[in-house]
Amino acid sequence: MDRLAIHTITTKAWDLPTAAKKYADAGVRGMGVWRQWLDGRPLAESRQILDDHGITAVSLVRGGFFPHLTPEEKQQSIDDNHRALDEAAAMGASQVVLVCGAKPELSLTESRKHITEGIAACIPHAEKLGVKLAIEPLHPMYADCRSAVNTLGQSTDIIEQLGSTRVGIAADVYHIWWDPNLEQEIQRAGKHICGFHVCDWLTPTNDFLNDRGLMGEGCIDIQGIRQQIEATGFNDWVEVEIFSDRWWSHDPDEYLTKIIQAYKNHV
Amino acid sequence: MDRLAIHTITTKAWDLPTAAKKYADAGVRGMGVWRQWLDGRPLAESRQILDDHGITAVSLVRGGFFPHLTPEEKQQSIDDNHRALDEAAAMGASQVVLVCGAKPELSLTESRKHITEGIAACIPHAEKLGVKLAIEPLHPMYADCRSAVNTLGQSTDIIEQLGSTRVGIAADVYHIWWDPNLEQEIQRAGKHICGFHVCDWLTPTNDFLNDRGLMGEGCIDIQGIRQQIEATGFNDWVEVEIFSDRWWSHDPDEYLTKIIQAYKNHV
Repeated sequence: MDRLAIHTITTKAWDLPTAAKKYADAGVRGMGVWRQWLDGRPLAESRQILDDHGITAVSLVRGGFFPHLTPEEKQQSIDDNHRALDEAAAMGASQVVLVCGAKPELSLTESRKHITEGIAACIPHAEKLGVKLAIEPLHPMYADCRSAVNTLGQSTDIIEQLGSTRVGIAADVYHIWWDPNLEQEIQRAGKHICGFHVCDWLTPTNDFLNDRGLMGEGCIDIQGIRQQIEATGFNDWVEVEIFSDRWWSHDPDEYLTKIIQAYKNHV
Repeated sequence: MDRLAIHTITTKAWDLPTAAKKYADAGVRGMGVWRQWLDGRPLAESRQILDDHGITAVSLVRGGFFPHLTPEEKQQSIDDNHRALDEAAAMGASQVVLVCGAKPELSLTESRKHITEGIAACIPHAEKLGVKLAIEPLHPMYADCRSAVNTLGQSTDIIEQLGSTRVGIAADVYHIWWDPNLEQEIQRAGKHICGFHVCDWLTPTNDFLNDRGLMGEGCIDIQGIRQQIEATGFNDWVEVEIFSDRWWSHDPDEYLTKIIQAYKNHV
């Protein structure tokens, strides 16, 4: 239980104070903080809410979205990532999770160039604050408009190109489980892996975004992937991040109990 | 126009005689024949229908589906692939397109093992008939229940392992366009590529199966991929394969005109 973290989006019905209390009461000590949950109150107050409940902000979600059509958009994305890093530092989160972005109007080559350049532009601020930029490779089904970074191998390539220890990888089983080279690419990513996200893949999946499963409900070999990732030396938080219209419509207290059971039995 | 082929599933409203006549009248000389279109009449009669209209059967769609839970299922899948090869030979089609299969109950490793073994079991019959088994790597979003072969690279690996020139690759832009290693993997696949399928990726895509775009409607760099594939020496048919509830509800004659325009302008 001391490694279980839950993303606030998973228990969408609860605002930050409610989630902090509910998680703490259930023995959950880590939280993936989505930025919307920080809206409407000073960062110091949000931080205090977590501290009061003994909750660690594990990750700030999310930065990225680097591909741009105009110089203004480019600057806006860098400014926004700087703010995300500031927010992470204020919350005590060690990383900002990057959904790197993609635009159907751009070629993948252009989007990927913008992403590498965008991350590079954010490294100095990340260095200054001591916060990591965690590239989250997204499933190839999101390559058109959410992320042109779609494999663990590609994430490692970008990190090697950038050459900064302030850039890491958030590996989410949902996005990487299908990869025929997964085991080798996890080994190659090695110490770059700084985040591990879990959920499950449902058959059938009825929605591109909001039909993820609770761990154990689907076909992903979560325990196998966890073993491979831990074999690289990773022993940090396991973050439960589930977008699910189905689960969001359940009673959230009951759902939290099920999340904890699923974590114990299937992760 | 002498390289344009259309899959019968694309113009789903038309049975084999109608599709043959409509394609021929429009100057389309190649057809990807889905097996359902052969139901209900002797193979020789189906062949005669195509011959009478000067239409070549480019590919027989589809074989595969090798992963199995029981020895009976295993035998059934091999028998069915043998029948598909027989049908291809009877129709004069040079290849059977393989949707290799996957089962959420099996690990990807098991499914992939079944696939390689299943293809191997079909090679002697393919050799005898002079028909190719064309592995179609499917998009990773189908890894749970349609195909555990999800990249061009993985397809090439399987072919190298099997070591038979009777096994090739049907490369569909819809399944491979996102691949960060696409250019290198096309080069590596080289002469193994025996089929090239086109359509487009829509943003947003609203259905996992039946929301493909007509070429030019989406974000795939079809011309770029075609150039890379032709750089390997490929100069065979370009097969239009579009599953689309939207297009299926259009007037099929008008749709055929649009397919030909899209082929000329965007492929």
